Amino acid sequence: MTKHAALPGRLLMLGFGSIGQGVLPLILRHIDITPDRITIISPDDAGKAVADEYGVTFLKMALTRENYVGELEARLGQGDFLCNVSVEVSSLALIRKCRELGALYVDTCIEPWPGGYTDPDLSPSQRSNYALRETALALKRELGAGSTAVIAHGANPGLVSHFLKVALLDIAKASGVDATRPDSREGWAALAQALDVKVVHIAERDTQKGEPAKARGEFVNTWSVNGFVGEGCQPSELGWGTHEPEMPPEGRRHDFGCDSAIYLMRPGAGTRVRTWVPSEGPIHGWLVTHNESISIADYFTVRDEAGAVVYRPTSHYAYHPCDEAVLSLHEFAGKNWELQPSVRILMNEIQPGGVDELGVLINGPAKGSYWYGSQLTIDEARELAPHNNATSLQVTVSVLAAMIWAIENPTAGLVEPEEVDERRIMEISTPYLGTMAGYWTNWTPLQDRETLFPEDLDRSEPWAFKNIIVH
Amino acid sequence: MTKHAALPGRLLMLGFGSIGQGVLPLILRHIDITPDRITIISPDDAGKAVADEYGVTFLKMALTRENYVGELEARLGQGDFLCNVSVEVSSLALIRKCRELGALYVDTCIEPWPGGYTDPDLSPSQRSNYALRETALALKRELGAGSTAVIAHGANPGLVSHFLKVALLDIAKASGVDATRPDSREGWAALAQALDVKVVHIAERDTQKGEPAKARGEFVNTWSVNGFVGEGCQPSELGWGTHEPEMPPEGRRHDFGCDSAIYLMRPGAGTRVRTWVPSEGPIHGWLVTHNESISIADYFTVRDEAGAVVYRPTSHYAYHPCDEAVLSLHEFAGKNWELQPSVRILMNEIQPGGVDELGVLINGPAKGSYWYGSQLTIDEARELAPHNNATSLQVTVSVLAAMIWAIENPTAGLVEPEEVDERRIMEISTPYLGTMAGYWTNWTPLQDRETLFPEDLDRSEPWAFKNIIVH
Repeated sequence: MTKHAALPGRLLMLGFGSIGQGVLPLILRHIDITPDRITIISPDDAGKAVADEYGVTFLKMALTRENYVGELEARLGQGDFLCNVSVEVSSLALIRKCRELGALYVDTCIEPWPGGYTDPDLSPSQRSNYALRETALALKRELGAGSTAVIAHGANPGLVSHFLKVALLDIAKASGVDATRPDSREGWAALAQALDVKVVHIAERDTQKGEPAKARGEFVNTWSVNGFVGEGCQPSELGWGTHEPEMPPEGRRHDFGCDSAIYLMRPGAGTRVRTWVPSEGPIHGWLVTHNESISIADYFTVRDEAGAVVYRPTSHYAYHPCDEAVLSLHEFAGKNWELQPSVRILMNEIQPGGVDELGVLINGPAKGSYWYGSQLTIDEARELAPHNNATSLQVTVSVLAAMIWAIENPTAGLVEPEEVDERRIMEISTPYLGTMAGYWTNWTPLQDRETLFPEDLDRSEPWAFKNIIVH
Repeated sequence: MTKHAALPGRLLMLGFGSIGQGVLPLILRHIDITPDRITIISPDDAGKAVADEYGVTFLKMALTRENYVGELEARLGQGDFLCNVSVEVSSLALIRKCRELGALYVDTCIEPWPGGYTDPDLSPSQRSNYALRETALALKRELGAGSTAVIAHGANPGLVSHFLKVALLDIAKASGVDATRPDSREGWAALAQALDVKVVHIAERDTQKGEPAKARGEFVNTWSVNGFVGEGCQPSELGWGTHEPEMPPEGRRHDFGCDSAIYLMRPGAGTRVRTWVPSEGPIHGWLVTHNESISIADYFTVRDEAGAVVYRPTSHYAYHPCDEAVLSLHEFAGKNWELQPSVRILMNEIQPGGVDELGVLINGPAKGSYWYGSQLTIDEARELAPHNNATSLQVTVSVLAAMIWAIENPTAGLVEPEEVDERRIMEISTPYLGTMAGYWTNWTPLQDRETLFPEDLDRSEPWAFKNIIVH
């Protein structure tokens, strides 16, 4: 197996749930590091046997506001690496500490300390991903150049921002537009504008199935239940495009920051949107808030010379989780967002044949809409890497790729996925993503509407969010 | 086994899906009739083997506007019986013909000819169950006294109206109110008013599970998929109580008929409401239109001397179908109500342990809310009767009971379930309904609301529909 990079120092992994357990074998396979230099800190014993299998040190310990400084100082120094795949540990606190210590850093989302997603004392705006990202951007400005910290670099957020760049070049090529790869943020945004991109869905359909079926009182998912429930209880958020004719009634702007996104006064776990995936056509997915919705809209913004926004795409997640998770969401809603007493992450019990189909669906270009992404079966995932399912592998290979990029670019400072070279990430990731393909479609959210009942639609702008949200 | 009644004439069964196949063995067990006098007409071969097993004549034939007169005249005369458990054959056409021929009649819902539920040329009001019931009431008035036709007498509509009467007497007893059984419609309505009944949910939770799990492109249910999809595409309808402070924004009154119900400008398959069942507590169910919502509200109406309505309860279905059907509904919605290419009714493949919990949940009484109904496991259903699951048995025993009541009361004319003696129906049905029990609860739809987001609630009237519907 290719060793893409060498890490001569120590690696501290924080969290060892499905992502931690899935990324460890990939790290040992593709980064030149010995197991004796790897330490895992995890609040529970879940992955201890896996850690033992690979001969890495496993410490059962919850990292808290009180103890994290000491624990990090004991285990990280110049050139070492913190791979943060935990929940309920503040990403920003960790990044700040890593910078002090000269350590590299990667995570898969910007996490707050416990309760940050559901604290009723915080306003919906304050507990949004927009607010978390703004604090990260402020930290980026404050810290400036220095040891690299790649934030929010899993499958999504993360990989999908690279898919989007590849897809834009595909669309350009197919549309007879200059398909030379832009080499600046401004260039990418101008390309999106030139192609008339109006909406970018992160369109995902997970068909993995486990046995036994979900029981009553159980939340079942193909990845972290706490992670999913946490983001599902945050307000729905979406990057808010310049083509949108009107604000949704439940939509709100934030009164601070870059203004690339809005939030809805409702939880993502209760908000469905219309989307499209190649294997099935039109589906309903959940508009769960995700960092990429906000960062993509911000990155692909075109401003005039005075700094006023002249172009921005709408961008949102449209997630159809595995069927057991759909049932779990329904039950969770019935209990007014009180989590089921038991949770289960499907891994070994997944039956053959399921697929995690994750891509970007780009609406607006004259040639039609274009979905581009990964169609990875559970069977492929199992053949490619141990301790993974199709969902986790799309995340873990992206974490691996971000780590390699950080090692290769050790002084990039705090960066978002859109600032990372998509070519290097795709080169490392592609062998693990199953079928990578693009599909054109003439689907619009106005198709087959109003057959039985009148609906409040905007027929003059098919790509208006009003047409996409399910009421 | 007790023969409750004798049918000396012929029995024609129309339709032989899950309900027809389930009721046939009960008829042969509890009605004195020989198989050679029974004929089944069904548009497909689905139940032919079951018909053969019992030695009854099976004719594969679709009954249509064109052929039904001849087919009925050939097979029904004075004292014969038409048991209609078909879909897409007009109940009213059949009732009218039975009256002419002097035959008794039972069905489980008021069916229109094909397309009546989804004809885009009909207004939502015209394709509502309210409109169908009004045509039945007009026919009742037109036909007057004569051979009995019991309409809409399955589990619900049907059995639940009897549960409601039993429950009202239970509540009266527990509340120190006179619990003498009323012997008139006016008496029952006055009792409901005296007990301050505000909302009657038909609260059902089906936990039966089949294997294999639902596939993509498949609609799976524990009873007729066509039946469920048909009513799910009709407008949501509910009996509309006098306590309701305001009309829902999507609510409409009909401009004809008894005015006991409203409809919503949305399909029931896309409308969820908060309800409560004993085994699980609070859940979300679907507000699918059903005849009992309208007939219960009408039957329990109190008018002043001038005929003005002074009291009426809200009444609606709140149906949590089996998990596979929840997933089927989600997929169906994603395709804008275009039915999946394949359908499956769970019967033999149901795993042990599932329950169909079907009852009335009565909100408003000072002592709290009261759920009363049947908790029937698949295992009990299998032990009690062949060719049934828990869902079908609650229907089929009710059809059986209505048939027996019609034989015993052959000149009652066209009657709704509320006009049938609940004591006789409960006597016949109870042995087949598993646990029949009542449960008190202090649940209200305001419990645990607004923990994360503000909601538009009516805190002055907990039982307002505004608090019950899920937005």
